[in-house]
Amino acid sequence: MPVDRDKLKQQAALRAVEFVEDSMIVGLGTGSTAYFVVEGLGARVAGGLKITGIPTSERTATQARSLGIPLATFAEHQHIDLTIDGADEVERGSLNLIKGLGGALLREKIVANASRRLVIVVDQEKLVDRLGDHTAVPVEVTQFGWQATAARLKELSAEPVLRHAHEDHPFITDGGNYTLDCRFPRIDDPRRLENAINAIVGVVDCGLFIGRASAVVVAASDGIHVMNAL
Amino acid sequence: MPVDRDKLKQQAALRAVEFVEDSMIVGLGTGSTAYFVVEGLGARVAGGLKITGIPTSERTATQARSLGIPLATFAEHQHIDLTIDGADEVERGSLNLIKGLGGALLREKIVANASRRLVIVVDQEKLVDRLGDHTAVPVEVTQFGWQATAARLKELSAEPVLRHAHEDHPFITDGGNYTLDCRFPRIDDPRRLENAINAIVGVVDCGLFIGRASAVVVAASDGIHVMNAL
Repeated sequence: MPVDRDKLKQQAALRAVEFVEDSMIVGLGTGSTAYFVVEGLGARVAGGLKITGIPTSERTATQARSLGIPLATFAEHQHIDLTIDGADEVERGSLNLIKGLGGALLREKIVANASRRLVIVVDQEKLVDRLGDHTAVPVEVTQFGWQATAARLKELSAEPVLRHAHEDHPFITDGGNYTLDCRFPRIDDPRRLENAINAIVGVVDCGLFIGRASAVVVAASDGIHVMNAL
Repeated sequence: MPVDRDKLKQQAALRAVEFVEDSMIVGLGTGSTAYFVVEGLGARVAGGLKITGIPTSERTATQARSLGIPLATFAEHQHIDLTIDGADEVERGSLNLIKGLGGALLREKIVANASRRLVIVVDQEKLVDRLGDHTAVPVEVTQFGWQATAARLKELSAEPVLRHAHEDHPFITDGGNYTLDCRFPRIDDPRRLENAINAIVGVVDCGLFIGRASAVVVAASDGIHVMNAL
């Protein structure tokens, strides 16, 4: 019998939603996994749970509203109890993450950063032994001078590729910036790399989330696993 | 006889323009001092000097075009021989700078960073013994979550003030961001502070220019002085 990946992901999302308690301010991620999270939260709110959601995108806001989840803006709540989101890559052990392939990097990072706890939901294919094994690191850069910024990233051994929305049209982020997807041959010290990337003039932020995840809920073919940060 | 500050500034700008040599790619700053620089360059171009200018703003581009200075975009030339620009504060000795009160922070920093030499023109009132003595450090931040970003800056002992264009309307940078003008009680290690500011999620960049200026031309009441980086 083939494994239904979406069904597994949904189960993992429901497990993550169990972390939510009454009266919490809850950051809501963006993407296919976050979709299941918001759906699960909607069911709990329908059952009487009282929370306030802080969406990281208009897409998530629309879905949450349709399910009757009360929302507020991040401007109103800068301290968030718990954020649940997906990730593109999770390093086993450290729970360091790469995020932002979906394009909502900056808002997700700002909200994650303001959260007391960050719970990540992924399927097992996203787990790696070393950060960067499978995935490029998205780097959000200002449009002006992006070529020079790409050259600086190359000096950090990256192979930056300008992300396109469609042929000849660069992808534009919520913040009006470009994204350079950067493959690195090997990431030995991700925190140091994050600082080096952020120090480059023209870089807005990058998709390395180091030491931020409190727990990762993994949808595996043999069931749902919860990995906790040490 | 009263000192004509504009006249002194113009003389200093002309002195800085002497650094320009034939066939150079020249970064052109933005602001009242840069205005005199572009004017002086225009005169030299009219006299036969061959250069290509890279403007940091539309304002500067318009002025340069009107004077017949050939222009190119930064996208075409990522290696610039020399950039001449103003500054809001210059620390004696180190030649560390605060820039960006004029609002073109990011472009000026990207262009300065790509320049082999950066020559700064200021009048003597801009000289200080310690960076931050007179001036707030402009920090360009994303609109989303700016309040949380301001809270993070406060943890670095800053007193951030959201810059306004006019009543109730925040100033919007070229890149579509906000600016937080940050007074610091005391800046002991500006390079470290720059890194700490840039590491904050939501910060695009800041107006600290550390170790970047090659020379500073000072318009003083007793004449024009040139200070070189050590």
